Amino acid sequence: MLNLKNRRFRGGVVLLSGGMDSAVTASVAKIECENLFFLHIDYGQRTEKKERECFLNLCRHFEVVNSLILKLNHFKIFGGSSLVDRNMEVEKGNLNRSDIPTSYVPFRNGNFLSIATSVAEVLSYDAIYIGAVSEDSSGYPDCKPEFYEAFKKAIELGTKPETHIEIITPVINLRKSEIVRLGVELKTPFEYTWSCYKNEDVACGECDSCLLRLKAFKEAGVKDPLPYKVEGGF
Amino acid sequence: MLNLKNRRFRGGVVLLSGGMDSAVTASVAKIECENLFFLHIDYGQRTEKKERECFLNLCRHFEVVNSLILKLNHFKIFGGSSLVDRNMEVEKGNLNRSDIPTSYVPFRNGNFLSIATSVAEVLSYDAIYIGAVSEDSSGYPDCKPEFYEAFKKAIELGTKPETHIEIITPVINLRKSEIVRLGVELKTPFEYTWSCYKNEDVACGECDSCLLRLKAFKEAGVKDPLPYKVEGGF
Repeated sequence: MLNLKNRRFRGGVVLLSGGMDSAVTASVAKIECENLFFLHIDYGQRTEKKERECFLNLCRHFEVVNSLILKLNHFKIFGGSSLVDRNMEVEKGNLNRSDIPTSYVPFRNGNFLSIATSVAEVLSYDAIYIGAVSEDSSGYPDCKPEFYEAFKKAIELGTKPETHIEIITPVINLRKSEIVRLGVELKTPFEYTWSCYKNEDVACGECDSCLLRLKAFKEAGVKDPLPYKVEGGF
Repeated sequence: MLNLKNRRFRGGVVLLSGGMDSAVTASVAKIECENLFFLHIDYGQRTEKKERECFLNLCRHFEVVNSLILKLNHFKIFGGSSLVDRNMEVEKGNLNRSDIPTSYVPFRNGNFLSIATSVAEVLSYDAIYIGAVSEDSSGYPDCKPEFYEAFKKAIELGTKPETHIEIITPVINLRKSEIVRLGVELKTPFEYTWSCYKNEDVACGECDSCLLRLKAFKEAGVKDPLPYKVEGGF
């Protein structure tokens, strides 16, 4: 499915939320990078406690020495997203909508890439991994391939002349079911991932993120190890 | 000198360190924007206490209601710059060097622009102001016009379709002495600015930033209101 070239990077900073896409992305990075730095960002999202637990389990699973959990205050201060603003409701999922859902966190991935660039430049690493998914997703603008191409150019121009950093998005053009299959192939521990936007104990099964995940596992014919409150018709 | 078009933006997020370049940039933004949001970032720099004092004085001077001092931990954690790593010495300035000085903070302005983009998108503001200076400066890569052009494209692609944000760099192509003259013209309160990288009471007069400032005021024929330990031959 993916043409994985062993060890093509000196070092990779992996943005790891603890969701299924970032966990599969980490499996790819583990193959491609000599050194790894796992970076988890606590930006005030509702399910951070659960995501952090997944992140730490994934650090242990991948035997990663260099890792950081970084707390950012500004997304919660700025608001404007149901993932950080407790006064906004996490909408019931709708995979057929064309507008951008309220769970969009303004320019979140731009912030994450900037932080990853700073640490990559300090460590002389040459890759940043991010598990963005474009078509088969909620339609966030900061998950599209052209955004990553533009950001890579900004990195190239905004860092030292000797710094060259690739942004690697291994799952961006895959369907969600293909991401599940790739994860199975790479032995990604899906039991250490979390996707629900809303709950931390039993996944709601109704938010966009749950719907996408349930559909993905169903289409892939793989059993999702997570517990769901309802399974949204899948 | 600059063709200032009154009120050309609905709202501007102004990145305001408290240095002379950002203070003059704020004077321009005050003319061009209907609404202002002043953003100061405490990223663990040596002279933050003094910079914060300048920022608050500038907020009062410009009668800005919306302002935020945001603390970021990651630059200090990552290190790699004499501005945040207390184990590195702030070098004596050298305005003739061609390499990038140790005061460069890896991809700092990329991080700042990302944060400013997030708040601008939430507020539906259409401009970000940053006081970057290109040629007549220390040669940081994230201060060059082409970096801002590339970043603007990343913002355009990475935000909602209805979000359009300009990055305004009013002083980027000016000589430092021209920035001083523009500040005099716009009545920028230079007494509420700080440039020294090293000290917070009396400016050292020897770091790159002091040398650039001393030279600028001398060439402009304007008296710098700040106290200096030595005035580096200017």
